[in-house]
Amino acid sequence: MAAVTAVPELERKEDSSRYTDRVREILSWYESDNPGTKANIARLMTHGRLAGTGKFVILPVDQGFEHGPARSFAANPAGYNPNYHFELALASGCNAYAAPLGFIEAAAARHAGEIPLILKVNNHDVLHDEKDPISAQTSSVHDALRLGCVAIGFTIYPGSAMAREMYQQLRVLAEEAKSYGLAVVVWSYPRGSSLSKDGETAIDVVAYAAHIAAELGAHIIKVKLPSEHIEQAEAQKAYTKAAIPISTLPDRVRHVVQSTFDGRRIVIFSGGAKKDEDEAIYEEARAIRAGGGFGSIIGRNSFQRPREHAVRFLQKIMEIYAE
Amino acid sequence: MAAVTAVPELERKEDSSRYTDRVREILSWYESDNPGTKANIARLMTHGRLAGTGKFVILPVDQGFEHGPARSFAANPAGYNPNYHFELALASGCNAYAAPLGFIEAAAARHAGEIPLILKVNNHDVLHDEKDPISAQTSSVHDALRLGCVAIGFTIYPGSAMAREMYQQLRVLAEEAKSYGLAVVVWSYPRGSSLSKDGETAIDVVAYAAHIAAELGAHIIKVKLPSEHIEQAEAQKAYTKAAIPISTLPDRVRHVVQSTFDGRRIVIFSGGAKKDEDEAIYEEARAIRAGGGFGSIIGRNSFQRPREHAVRFLQKIMEIYAE
Amino acid sequence: MAAVTAVPELERKEDSSRYTDRVREILSWYESDNPGTKANIARLMTHGRLAGTGKFVILPVDQGFEHGPARSFAANPAGYNPNYHFELALASGCNAYAAPLGFIEAAAARHAGEIPLILKVNNHDVLHDEKDPISAQTSSVHDALRLGCVAIGFTIYPGSAMAREMYQQLRVLAEEAKSYGLAVVVWSYPRGSSLSKDGETAIDVVAYAAHIAAELGAHIIKVKLPSEHIEQAEAQKAYTKAAIPISTLPDRVRHVVQSTFDGRRIVIFSGGAKKDEDEAIYEEARAIRAGGGFGSIIGRNSFQRPREHAVRFLQKIMEIYAE
Amino acid sequence: MAAVTAVPELERKEDSSRYTDRVREILSWYESDNPGTKANIARLMTHGRLAGTGKFVILPVDQGFEHGPARSFAANPAGYNPNYHFELALASGCNAYAAPLGFIEAAAARHAGEIPLILKVNNHDVLHDEKDPISAQTSSVHDALRLGCVAIGFTIYPGSAMAREMYQQLRVLAEEAKSYGLAVVVWSYPRGSSLSKDGETAIDVVAYAAHIAAELGAHIIKVKLPSEHIEQAEAQKAYTKAAIPISTLPDRVRHVVQSTFDGRRIVIFSGGAKKDEDEAIYEEARAIRAGGGFGSIIGRNSFQRPREHAVRFLQKIMEIYAE
Amino acid sequence: MAAVTAVPELERKEDSSRYTDRVREILSWYESDNPGTKANIARLMTHGRLAGTGKFVILPVDQGFEHGPARSFAANPAGYNPNYHFELALASGCNAYAAPLGFIEAAAARHAGEIPLILKVNNHDVLHDEKDPISAQTSSVHDALRLGCVAIGFTIYPGSAMAREMYQQLRVLAEEAKSYGLAVVVWSYPRGSSLSKDGETAIDVVAYAAHIAAELGAHIIKVKLPSEHIEQAEAQKAYTKAAIPISTLPDRVRHVVQSTFDGRRIVIFSGGAKKDEDEAIYEEARAIRAGGGFGSIIGRNSFQRPREHAVRFLQKIMEIYAE
Repeated sequence: MAAVTAVPELERKEDSSRYTDRVREILSWYESDNPGTKANIARLMTHGRLAGTGKFVILPVDQGFEHGPARSFAANPAGYNPNYHFELALASGCNAYAAPLGFIEAAAARHAGEIPLILKVNNHDVLHDEKDPISAQTSSVHDALRLGCVAIGFTIYPGSAMAREMYQQLRVLAEEAKSYGLAVVVWSYPRGSSLSKDGETAIDVVAYAAHIAAELGAHIIKVKLPSEHIEQAEAQKAYTKAAIPISTLPDRVRHVVQSTFDGRRIVIFSGGAKKDEDEAIYEEARAIRAGGGFGSIIGRNSFQRPREHAVRFLQKIMEIYAE
Repeated sequence: MAAVTAVPELERKEDSSRYTDRVREILSWYESDNPGTKANIARLMTHGRLAGTGKFVILPVDQGFEHGPARSFAANPAGYNPNYHFELALASGCNAYAAPLGFIEAAAARHAGEIPLILKVNNHDVLHDEKDPISAQTSSVHDALRLGCVAIGFTIYPGSAMAREMYQQLRVLAEEAKSYGLAVVVWSYPRGSSLSKDGETAIDVVAYAAHIAAELGAHIIKVKLPSEHIEQAEAQKAYTKAAIPISTLPDRVRHVVQSTFDGRRIVIFSGGAKKDEDEAIYEEARAIRAGGGFGSIIGRNSFQRPREHAVRFLQKIMEIYAE
Repeated sequence: MAAVTAVPELERKEDSSRYTDRVREILSWYESDNPGTKANIARLMTHGRLAGTGKFVILPVDQGFEHGPARSFAANPAGYNPNYHFELALASGCNAYAAPLGFIEAAAARHAGEIPLILKVNNHDVLHDEKDPISAQTSSVHDALRLGCVAIGFTIYPGSAMAREMYQQLRVLAEEAKSYGLAVVVWSYPRGSSLSKDGETAIDVVAYAAHIAAELGAHIIKVKLPSEHIEQAEAQKAYTKAAIPISTLPDRVRHVVQSTFDGRRIVIFSGGAKKDEDEAIYEEARAIRAGGGFGSIIGRNSFQRPREHAVRFLQKIMEIYAE
Repeated sequence: MAAVTAVPELERKEDSSRYTDRVREILSWYESDNPGTKANIARLMTHGRLAGTGKFVILPVDQGFEHGPARSFAANPAGYNPNYHFELALASGCNAYAAPLGFIEAAAARHAGEIPLILKVNNHDVLHDEKDPISAQTSSVHDALRLGCVAIGFTIYPGSAMAREMYQQLRVLAEEAKSYGLAVVVWSYPRGSSLSKDGETAIDVVAYAAHIAAELGAHIIKVKLPSEHIEQAEAQKAYTKAAIPISTLPDRVRHVVQSTFDGRRIVIFSGGAKKDEDEAIYEEARAIRAGGGFGSIIGRNSFQRPREHAVRFLQKIMEIYAE
Repeated sequence: MAAVTAVPELERKEDSSRYTDRVREILSWYESDNPGTKANIARLMTHGRLAGTGKFVILPVDQGFEHGPARSFAANPAGYNPNYHFELALASGCNAYAAPLGFIEAAAARHAGEIPLILKVNNHDVLHDEKDPISAQTSSVHDALRLGCVAIGFTIYPGSAMAREMYQQLRVLAEEAKSYGLAVVVWSYPRGSSLSKDGETAIDVVAYAAHIAAELGAHIIKVKLPSEHIEQAEAQKAYTKAAIPISTLPDRVRHVVQSTFDGRRIVIFSGGAKKDEDEAIYEEARAIRAGGGFGSIIGRNSFQRPREHAVRFLQKIMEIYAE
């Protein structure tokens, strides 16, 4: 036999308490990726209050671009300031902060290396709102590297007549990102002329959108919380025949997680439109946890609350995931 | 402790009276940029009558391309001559002169280094005027460098069905420009089939357009002065709920400035169509100043006035900003 | 005035105890670098037992390539195994682990994101040992990115007739590394036909070599501990005339630190050949600390000791720096 | 917990009897490589009589280029025919066949997919034989792909004054090969003006050469069988002090294997010059096996024997490794 | 007649007092250059106390690299700090500051746009000092642009056996620099095995070296002050036959200026080794002025004096040139 000696596990210092077995397990799902990409996925899992748990609470602030500044920031005007969001993500202990080029450029140097960053490389605005939407590429893989980001973020709209163009744009960017050791986060939001309004959050459609993102090579997938509605007639048959449980939110989360490689991709859920009741969102987080979801990406519901409130609110959600 | 010695501030000669603390403060907002880009932003802020104030009056002459020569220059035929505009910008003490390739090429050698130049790298004409407009790229980052410019200028039309294509073109040019140490000035002019005519200058739309430009990575943003009109129904709710003051022009300027990273990006306002009354434009400048705007970009209202008049007029505006 | 609101400092969670004011101060010396490079320098300063102190203990293992495997690993055969060094660096709490391509590739996936890595992109062996040595480039900037490294490491031999070629090779690699957000660590080891054996560690020569590395754009500089010897006649005059104190090791460290931009570049010192007495190396560390040096890079003296001993030994050195 | 379900082991068809735990273990050492490279290493380990054992017997035929055709093929003129070697490798059940461009091109189409191929991408001839040799690059990574090869092969001569150039050429080719999913096989043959003739196979030199190849990123390393001689004075001290056993061939093989990442790289040994006695070579194979070596690469001793003899001879060696 | 209207000269504001007729005249010599390069030459002539005069006092600090840190900075230890030199150049009102990559990177962001910068893109050290010297390229045209420099600086050693290589390296860099609108400053220092020590500053050699730099396309040429010695026998004949006046320093300066395109290239003179007497250097400046030279580049004689002294000293030299 070859002279391969085992290296006994050494006692680790406190740093390594974040690099847990669960972190290693999740990283093992990405074994086709190079160590650079794995390192960046690991950075997301070893930062903040949820470090080491394999759970995520991410602060995304692309609403300014997506919905306009007043709709995004007037409720809590501190949010007009790009520094605010870095500090909020740091203060509350989020795993990462995600934003478009301008917001990242405005404060990345000051906080260099302080928190994992996700550069949202495509964006959409509602000044021209199409029935079949498509986002514009607004930054690049090289931007992500020069700004010290751990990942690119990209939105696809499955269901849009433009979906093919988005998938193809993602393909090029994801291949480049992976070659340079970055992770790829995909926002998969069903929209477009083929879907009813209810269909955008239908359980069959959300599960399908999550699966498409995973098949496109996403490491981390963000979807909306699904409703009990089933949009596609053909899908209805399958759900009925197999008696897939979808009546509770944990059921539906479980089904979405199963649909993304049987839980072998990180799937996180968006909080959606601002809700006034904190408890409603805590309930959602408990449901995500119960269904095996990996966490929440919470934009408007965090930065539109007053700062003190937002920090307490985010930390409470983290406590739910850490349980 | 490491042997780091502080360098005591030396007395500075008169040159440095332009490189003021306000200049330094504004530069500090661009800390992700390389020193080359910062130097070119500084050049804009240390030239002309407003040097050192952090305020801007810029002379743009792209109307010949945009509206045709007679509509642009017949009122003051000296303006057919490209030298005229360099001299006008110099004589009045503007921070910079901005124009398309031809106008810059025609006189840049003669005035090399005499005034900061902004190469307008895309342009649009009205011989074919579409409902959903898009400008053509008419020069390059390398053109800007070989012509001695400090920045590229680029127009986007948020609200156009072609907006995505413009954003993506800007992305490529801005990344290249920043790599080579140039600044990026974005003209953000809402237009297109999704907007009413009034919507193009609606306060919600202008603030949104300014925010989009900032998120796309613009260092300097040019928008039109906004009206009290609100175009988008969803935005109306936000303005009402937060009681955002928009009834006066200073209010609206303040809101636009806030919408561009809470005042951390340079936003300047265009004078719009030619107005016969100087005083009306002085009033606008006072409103811009009162609202925290960074200055004016004044094309037709300067070069369509007789030269003596134009110089007095521009200098009066600078005096207003310098107060 | 523009509507720039200050963001009040928020309470930080324990993570941020590593991102100290000293870390921020050191980062401020690299203000021409992009946020990516700053983030990677920050990662080096926020990992391990010395996190937040601005001090460094780095484990380098390129001796296998430089001197051959038996001379490097026979004293402690566990070191033949590439996993051993990752684990040793982790167990002892080093800021980083540095090695050539093969050693990094062999274990980077398993430890992805667990410890900052420095890819040593050039290497030299003694099977052909020239009077005027030059290392071979053995890996690339893209390798560093795909392997998840925070920096490239490069050796120059000032004093070699081949120095020009090394400087030029470094120039190309450093420019590329900085563009992609990596840090640049330079091993500056005077050698070559122009220098006596004593001259290789002469105080004038070591200070000069450190300065050259800084002028070549290194972020972090590694030199040998200098002796009291002065090699160059012209330099002798300067040392005498200015009465530069060089009689003690702290004096000499202080002079080397001063020679690298008056303490504005991170300079760390190598332990040199293996010493049997731990105390001798502790004394060196105390002298480095007293002279304002930033830390130690300790190869043979760590991995050639038995593991338990090595961990205690490295942690003792860290304690000295942390005092 | 996330909904990760275990996949029950399926019964495998006979093919999979080749994809053994030992194959998986060896592949685990290459975890930084992409699945393409791993797949090609796996192909080498799952073909031929030694499939599944983790042992190798490879047929290389670059002697025509290296020593001239008559010296190579006159003893068994069938060897002038490039088809002969493919057939010999297949008939005897070798893991792979390695040759320069011409020999591969001449028969690769006919045997496409029938046996793993290694394209020897650099070669040296003795019409000009230098004291400090360097091979010429004679084919490319693209050639290897278009010809259906699983790996590139590259020779380095540690100890040559040209070693730096070879290492750098290998660096470029290896990075490209790995990116395209190929494996990299390095022939590491110490030669050059710094070494005595005995030194070329000295145990310290061979172990060093194997380590260098591993550090350069080779997946598979080919060295000559080492003698008991020690070439370098500094190395002698280390061997004596650590009492490294080198008196028997198994001892020396074990030391070389240890020197290549403690047995975590595939190291195979060349038979060297033609020997008339089969038994001498069987003895070498037994020693390689006893020392934990991964196999043999046997050129002249196979293709210079008559075909029937050669097949029996090679199969006997495989039997030794399979024991 | 074509409708070419003259543009009457407008009254200029104080800014333009720097952009004098002399500045325009000097720029007219570079009419083959693009406006970008002209703009950067103009920036050098419109900054500092000599703005508008067409005269230059430049602060170069490459001595740390060229001679070592102690020989350079021990006399005035403030000079170890890269910020010091920016501030000294600013405080005294120099036209520009020139330094290698490291010194520029260390402080360019803080002083972005505050003073014209010349990036010294090649450098030489004396740890290996050859009879036929050649500098190493240590930075690039892209570095100059990203750092906001107006020019690259490059040293050639006419008379060195390596001169051809330096000329060719300069050719490539100068062509690239000019394409991107940068100016090219050439340090032309005769050295090498073909020249006697006296020959390095011989009038025939210095004039020749200046002419070579001009022929290589330099915009600005730096030479040492020439002595009355004539090095080349063939040249001696010409000087005698034409009775070229070279007996006084103004004579020799006049001859060097004449030799660089009859005064149509900017030629500045270096102060050489540190002199204790200020007056000796003032005398040299008066001689340079009297001979039609364009100014001085003063390194050691400025930064090795205490700061207050240095500022007074440099300003006195500027007064001499401004007379």
